[in-house]
Amino acid sequence: MHVVSERRLEDGVAEREFTLGQIPGTLWTPVSAAPLPLILMAHNNGLPKSEPRLVARARRTAAQGYAVASIDASGCGDRPRSAEADQARAELRRAMRAGEPVEEIFESFIGPLVEEAAPEWRTTLDALLALPEIGGPVGYSGWAALGICLAASDPRIAAAGFFAGGYVPRAQREEARQVTIPLLLLLQWDDEGNPRQRALDLFDAFGSKEKTLHANLGGHLGTPSFEAEDGDRFYGRHLR
Amino acid sequence: MHVVSERRLEDGVAEREFTLGQIPGTLWTPVSAAPLPLILMAHNNGLPKSEPRLVARARRTAAQGYAVASIDASGCGDRPRSAEADQARAELRRAMRAGEPVEEIFESFIGPLVEEAAPEWRTTLDALLALPEIGGPVGYSGWAALGICLAASDPRIAAAGFFAGGYVPRAQREEARQVTIPLLLLLQWDDEGNPRQRALDLFDAFGSKEKTLHANLGGHLGTPSFEAEDGDRFYGRHLR
Repeated sequence: MHVVSERRLEDGVAEREFTLGQIPGTLWTPVSAAPLPLILMAHNNGLPKSEPRLVARARRTAAQGYAVASIDASGCGDRPRSAEADQARAELRRAMRAGEPVEEIFESFIGPLVEEAAPEWRTTLDALLALPEIGGPVGYSGWAALGICLAASDPRIAAAGFFAGGYVPRAQREEARQVTIPLLLLLQWDDEGNPRQRALDLFDAFGSKEKTLHANLGGHLGTPSFEAEDGDRFYGRHLR
Repeated sequence: MHVVSERRLEDGVAEREFTLGQIPGTLWTPVSAAPLPLILMAHNNGLPKSEPRLVARARRTAAQGYAVASIDASGCGDRPRSAEADQARAELRRAMRAGEPVEEIFESFIGPLVEEAAPEWRTTLDALLALPEIGGPVGYSGWAALGICLAASDPRIAAAGFFAGGYVPRAQREEARQVTIPLLLLLQWDDEGNPRQRALDLFDAFGSKEKTLHANLGGHLGTPSFEAEDGDRFYGRHLR
């Protein structure tokens, strides 16, 4: 892990930009003497780690005593764009404007994105847990499809909060049965681009004995602010 | 309102048994100099106000600075049983044992129970708000069908938490559209006697702009203990 830059934010959180081979990442940590629990935080569908809402959530979480880390998936954020991904994005926009079905385009775009991102997140997790200031346990927050892929295969992940507002490829909908850790699934009841029934089916499919669904009225971006505090308490129960 | 008995519990909460005409009620209040917000608490399907889980919830809530009140519905709890209601209960048990459909039996039993209980709760609310130690605002907790009936018609009720695990008569499923206050609906995902889809449809039907569904894995009695704290925060946001 190569630290590219480090700065101290006004809330006392240190923000380090790092690279791990070709993977660009950000690590947010509060000042702490004891080894910190860690939360891996990813934005749905490979949106960049510099996305302002993700950064705000990461800083807010770090200020409460967690190390928080995010990386850019291949072809996303700070990484070189691939012609394939750009074409898929253009095709997606065109189909959405035309009101055409987007299921297969999402599947062919997000499916490989998850499959490529997962091993990079595992590599990142290895490197993060080798840092003296990070002790675990490890939680996951955000992008449901990636989180399912990681939680189904990596026993180091102890609890996960997923946002239902993103495309979950068929492979991860199947893998959901193998996820058995405590879960919090956040659903916006009228999310424009994400069918409600699919989110409810996903919640039903998880193999976890402790799983909670929080559904709120409103569209994709309308999650009420009190859900951030509910998330804090969820992680507090499982990572402290 | 005639106070029949009063005792001080070990958590500092005063428990008063009262009658209001033929209506037997219980009022739990913490020690407080300022007028208290009030929560009306009813158990699903007319179960008695002395039911231990309701009493525990009421005392816990009162200890946090609320007046909490419950009454027994006509034919329930401490009140004279009616031959009709006893017959309906016997018929319900028989049909359940035989694995027969119970929808129409529930409808004919719970429908009139709600219609009779609602005016008694309104009378009780009048009497409670006349007490110097109770200032409002007023919240509602528990029995969904009764709460819908009250919240749809009584503007004094400012926020409501409903448990989805009870039969909601057709009239209240219709009335749900007229409920516009902030809501928290609690659903047990595998509630044996209460179809999940009906609870999801009910959540969808509410007219409220702010409504939240909390669904947890497990059967009718399996609500996790952290939901009590989530409920506290919900009432704290709307009644403080």
